Amino acid sequence: MATVVAPKEFSPVEDAENIKKACLGWGTDESAIISILGHRNSFQRKLIRQAYEEIYHEDLVKQLKSELRGSFETAVIQWILEPADRDAVLANAALNKTIPDYRVIIEIACVRSPEDLLAVKRAYRFRYKHSLEEDVAARTTGDIRKLLVAVVSAYRHDGHEIDEDVACSEAGILHDDISGKAFNHEELIRILSTRSKSQLNATFNRYKDLHGTSITKALYPADEYLAVLRTVIRCIYNPKKYFAKLLRSAINKESIDEEVVSRVVITRAEKDLKEIKELFLERNTESLDLVLAGETSGHYKTFLLALSGVVLD
Amino acid sequence: MATVVAPKEFSPVEDAENIKKACLGWGTDESAIISILGHRNSFQRKLIRQAYEEIYHEDLVKQLKSELRGSFETAVIQWILEPADRDAVLANAALNKTIPDYRVIIEIACVRSPEDLLAVKRAYRFRYKHSLEEDVAARTTGDIRKLLVAVVSAYRHDGHEIDEDVACSEAGILHDDISGKAFNHEELIRILSTRSKSQLNATFNRYKDLHGTSITKALYPADEYLAVLRTVIRCIYNPKKYFAKLLRSAINKESIDEEVVSRVVITRAEKDLKEIKELFLERNTESLDLVLAGETSGHYKTFLLALSGVVLD
Repeated sequence: MATVVAPKEFSPVEDAENIKKACLGWGTDESAIISILGHRNSFQRKLIRQAYEEIYHEDLVKQLKSELRGSFETAVIQWILEPADRDAVLANAALNKTIPDYRVIIEIACVRSPEDLLAVKRAYRFRYKHSLEEDVAARTTGDIRKLLVAVVSAYRHDGHEIDEDVACSEAGILHDDISGKAFNHEELIRILSTRSKSQLNATFNRYKDLHGTSITKALYPADEYLAVLRTVIRCIYNPKKYFAKLLRSAINKESIDEEVVSRVVITRAEKDLKEIKELFLERNTESLDLVLAGETSGHYKTFLLALSGVVLD
Repeated sequence: MATVVAPKEFSPVEDAENIKKACLGWGTDESAIISILGHRNSFQRKLIRQAYEEIYHEDLVKQLKSELRGSFETAVIQWILEPADRDAVLANAALNKTIPDYRVIIEIACVRSPEDLLAVKRAYRFRYKHSLEEDVAARTTGDIRKLLVAVVSAYRHDGHEIDEDVACSEAGILHDDISGKAFNHEELIRILSTRSKSQLNATFNRYKDLHGTSITKALYPADEYLAVLRTVIRCIYNPKKYFAKLLRSAINKESIDEEVVSRVVITRAEKDLKEIKELFLERNTESLDLVLAGETSGHYKTFLLALSGVVLD
């Protein structure tokens, strides 16, 4: 379930005007911006951006980029972009790092629905005049490339039909590959990149039944490729658990990886952040909201907490 | 350019009624069916099918299947289906042969536009509850599988931007692979399946400039995989020439491969059959229409000639 709280009734024009007001004069009224944008769903934000453009002949993204700073700026801009376009931007940024952040690519390829992934690929082509597959291939090598290009290229069936015979035989193929340490086996990549998620979940369950251990446990990430492979499987098998763990590892007593925290909160706030928070709490002494309140600060904190559904009065 | 001649003004209801009339009573008036369906474009045929369903609560495809026979039946049914759905049916039939007909898969993956290929994949999932990629993978093995799954999965950028540096460096990679006989090289598959067609055409042209011979000539099909690879390149590089040659090889003095002839005429009649016919004539003493008139017969002949733009009075 979503955490962001959006009103049923709202006026895009009024919101656009109030955002403009918050930007005018000395300084910026960040609280006003948060109280509006932190409580609008993706469709509402789209209408606000359109209204802003019509009234002021100015792109809301550009306006806010010039007004805001730091992690808060980045988070607000990501939040305003349409989800597919946002993912395209996240993917491009992840690929352009010195060492590409494969996790972002895998989340987009394996957590999003087939239609949503497609929308990301379309948005990516539109923005960067390259296909996402092309840029993933250009920024990776070897087995990691084979696996990532395959999962990004996937256009899976998204029905719920399960073929138990296939699940059984492919659980066997995966087990043979993994226990034989032939991790880069073509069959494994074929299975992970062409089967529907329902079918893959049946296969992973069958793997556990037959071998007494889950496939993710069997895959101890001894090198970079295995870590990538394991992330692919976790993002298909149990994305909420994956995100809960990602948040835990991004927030520790010494530091906080704001990039990761922003990405999870922003991309999941309208999807399943509620369940992710519950899973987070199961393995943590404090709730995500309390941790965020303690570890972040300023407008960035207020904004994240708004998206996470915390009502601050 | 298209060859099929469709009137600007038409009435889907009248057409549906006239087709019904042609099906009623003793025997079927095939000529009436040809004179209607052979002269309607894909949008018009869709409206006729809808009108037929609304008036008679019967699917036109089912009705015609029970009325018509043989190659004529197959051709008319293929013609009525919407292009993406037709391609899904063609792909499935090609995969279900004892030896899959890889050409059909390659034509769909490499000749159709990225958006059209996507529509085929969507139609395929809807009809068969599997992804096309999944079924291609299940029916192929080894290097052929790697290549075919990759080109079917592709969602290429379809812009016209060309990066000359990439064209030059990738022409070199292709040449090294081909001259080193490492035909199944990962790089080659990556290039063919992720780059836009405009970029690939620039790369193939650069290949010719640098090495004095076209890439298709350099690839003499010494085995099945090389034949598949060559077909992929020909379908990307010069599909019209590919289809002209396919027609020539499907029609010879001893026999005619009606399946191939129907497929090319039906799938290209609204696209570029005019240019394909011109290319056919360049290397043949007779025009395609004359050859079809001589080598086919009955209603099948009349129907093919109608789609090919021949006005019979």
